[in-house]
Amino acid sequence: MKADIIAIGDEILIGQITDTNSQFIAEKLNLSGFEIRQITSVADDKNHIVSVLDEVSKYTDLVLMTGGLGPTEDDLTKQTLTDYFGGNLVLNEEVLEDVRQFVKNKGFELNERNRKQAEVPDNCKIIRNKNGTAAGMRFEKNNTIFISMPAVPFEMKEMFETSILPFLKEKFNLPKIVHRNVLTYGFFESSLAEKLSSWEEQLHPKIKLAYLPSPERIRLRLSMICDSEEKAEKILDEEVQKLQNLIGESIFGYGDIFLQEALAEILKEKKATISTAESCTSGNIARLITSVPGSSAYFKGGIAAYSNEVKTALLKVPEEILEKHGAVSREVVEQMVKGQLELFNTDYGIAVSGIAGPDGGTPEKPVGTTWIAVGNKNKIIARKYTFGTRRLLNVRFASSKAMDNLRRFILGYDF
Amino acid sequence: MKADIIAIGDEILIGQITDTNSQFIAEKLNLSGFEIRQITSVADDKNHIVSVLDEVSKYTDLVLMTGGLGPTEDDLTKQTLTDYFGGNLVLNEEVLEDVRQFVKNKGFELNERNRKQAEVPDNCKIIRNKNGTAAGMRFEKNNTIFISMPAVPFEMKEMFETSILPFLKEKFNLPKIVHRNVLTYGFFESSLAEKLSSWEEQLHPKIKLAYLPSPERIRLRLSMICDSEEKAEKILDEEVQKLQNLIGESIFGYGDIFLQEALAEILKEKKATISTAESCTSGNIARLITSVPGSSAYFKGGIAAYSNEVKTALLKVPEEILEKHGAVSREVVEQMVKGQLELFNTDYGIAVSGIAGPDGGTPEKPVGTTWIAVGNKNKIIARKYTFGTRRLLNVRFASSKAMDNLRRFILGYDF
Repeated sequence: MKADIIAIGDEILIGQITDTNSQFIAEKLNLSGFEIRQITSVADDKNHIVSVLDEVSKYTDLVLMTGGLGPTEDDLTKQTLTDYFGGNLVLNEEVLEDVRQFVKNKGFELNERNRKQAEVPDNCKIIRNKNGTAAGMRFEKNNTIFISMPAVPFEMKEMFETSILPFLKEKFNLPKIVHRNVLTYGFFESSLAEKLSSWEEQLHPKIKLAYLPSPERIRLRLSMICDSEEKAEKILDEEVQKLQNLIGESIFGYGDIFLQEALAEILKEKKATISTAESCTSGNIARLITSVPGSSAYFKGGIAAYSNEVKTALLKVPEEILEKHGAVSREVVEQMVKGQLELFNTDYGIAVSGIAGPDGGTPEKPVGTTWIAVGNKNKIIARKYTFGTRRLLNVRFASSKAMDNLRRFILGYDF
Repeated sequence: MKADIIAIGDEILIGQITDTNSQFIAEKLNLSGFEIRQITSVADDKNHIVSVLDEVSKYTDLVLMTGGLGPTEDDLTKQTLTDYFGGNLVLNEEVLEDVRQFVKNKGFELNERNRKQAEVPDNCKIIRNKNGTAAGMRFEKNNTIFISMPAVPFEMKEMFETSILPFLKEKFNLPKIVHRNVLTYGFFESSLAEKLSSWEEQLHPKIKLAYLPSPERIRLRLSMICDSEEKAEKILDEEVQKLQNLIGESIFGYGDIFLQEALAEILKEKKATISTAESCTSGNIARLITSVPGSSAYFKGGIAAYSNEVKTALLKVPEEILEKHGAVSREVVEQMVKGQLELFNTDYGIAVSGIAGPDGGTPEKPVGTTWIAVGNKNKIIARKYTFGTRRLLNVRFASSKAMDNLRRFILGYDF
């Protein structure tokens, strides 16, 4: 089945916003067995919208649109679709009630603009919007389904997942696809691919493997088109088990989590606490750890130890060590772990000190040089890394590496 | 002048990545006076690429393409364009030298794949790539210009800004446009629009005003199409001056900076130092402040005071106060400022304590309730805010608000 995505809105064409909706929709449709033919972004322009609809409907079974459903005059999608499919705008009591409820919950009275939002085409199926005032719409013409959604990501996503995707799965005779996401950290993409090459070769021909790399993780996505989901689940589970045997220590989770969430599970299970002492990442690891709801169960606190003064005063890094070895050194990060364990009275500690750049590099310690230590009262392991030259990217690299090192430390893995 | 953007790559169509390149290109082209007609994303599929080129070239003066220039087999753009414009691939010595230099700098030897990157169409103008191995290409057909760039954002951006944009400005008879970006913080978009409504009405009809809101700032963009840039500069400067008179205290800068960069300028000028003590934002403000290169000149350090224990032990928040008023209270954030000024020996301090959610709210202190204090040894000002229900968004709101409050505190403005 082929699908097209159309993003409507002047703000996309003038480069005011990045269209993230289309990626979300494309991924979900792709995972459900659609082939996305084209993604098209057009301005709030009636003629252009109509000509794109004419064009894409020649090739596609499904058209998903976002945008242009707001209450302002430049939002033309609703009127355009009503006319295109030959209907009329009429007040819909059900939508009006949804809108009334929505504005009431926000503490407002229904106004004329809100009321206009409840005028919808009489030739479509309405898709209710729990999170906003613009209803979704579904049309059908010459065997192509056209669905229009609001562009607010929050509203669109909820509508897509709870109403539209279930409808599409029922409506279309889609291939059955089963997926597994295996989340890894610690390999470069190329070395992971090399490590997994013989495993990849023996994969069932109906299994597709994708590498999805980022500074935070490499996601391995296995997808299997199948007649029987049960059988595919079994086959995929076996392949995941083989991966476990091959690279088990680098697998930190499944699905769509990040290292801070993997750490959360480990720490909650062990009823252990952690703290952080960060120089170049300066709070970024603490922020990531506390981005997980419920992190107060294991995270006590952290120090952004940006100046040497703070390293000495709070983390008890001796001035002589700072002078002799420099702030970016094994000796300093080791002491930063010791100092924080005492200061915060935690079970585990993370310490990072590096040269994030763009300045501060030397021939011996170029920009990107970063020492990371993790440990507990009995043992501290420090490692040196050389990341790149870009400041913000270095902070991301160092933060992920530090969390992964702590994960491996606690679980007794190599790193 | 009309322009089309085409993003080529399977990874976009299957939703593996968000296409951020197109927004970058769209904004730059728009600011230079092009009207972006359409943005189209297609897979690495020769026939589809060709049919889109046929289609868009009916309407447009300029086609900018990204993607499909890599060395792997699924990258088809170079061959497709070579054929489409009727040329042949030939080894280009200049490109080969660039590629050789590039891989050498990375510490590698030139291999067969790299050498293939130096085979380019003989019917195009080559655009050199300083940051990668794929050269850009420029074709012309029936008065339409077609430009192909690599999809790696870093490579594309440099190529676009240093080579392509200057070429386009020379090639096309573009309207002269002068821009001013005024960066504000402290208003809701609607209240800012209300505040500025009479100013907006008196604007020269050739000035276009855009509101670009985010949790970090509202950017006001004034654009003026003009015959004489000098005259437009003068008119826009006058309008910016009027804005200064109307909302001067809410303007934290011009161009494309963020609050942490505005703070950097103020602190460097005053030769003052700051620290942070963060509960719910837990290091996010420290991270933002140190995202500015050179921040070690004024940022000494921070505490992620996530647990009450840490608030008491390090920031000297008395246990009685925590018990009586709770961690999210005026009394606690005030003491968090006092405590950190002593601990870090800084001139100014920022303290935040709030309920980020999703749990932890009560009827009196619902999720989103956040106390923020800023101050120095002589004076501390604490304010309460009620943000929303979404954890990560609350952290962003609180971080920006805290930095803006410190900016206003130092400059003696109201907040």
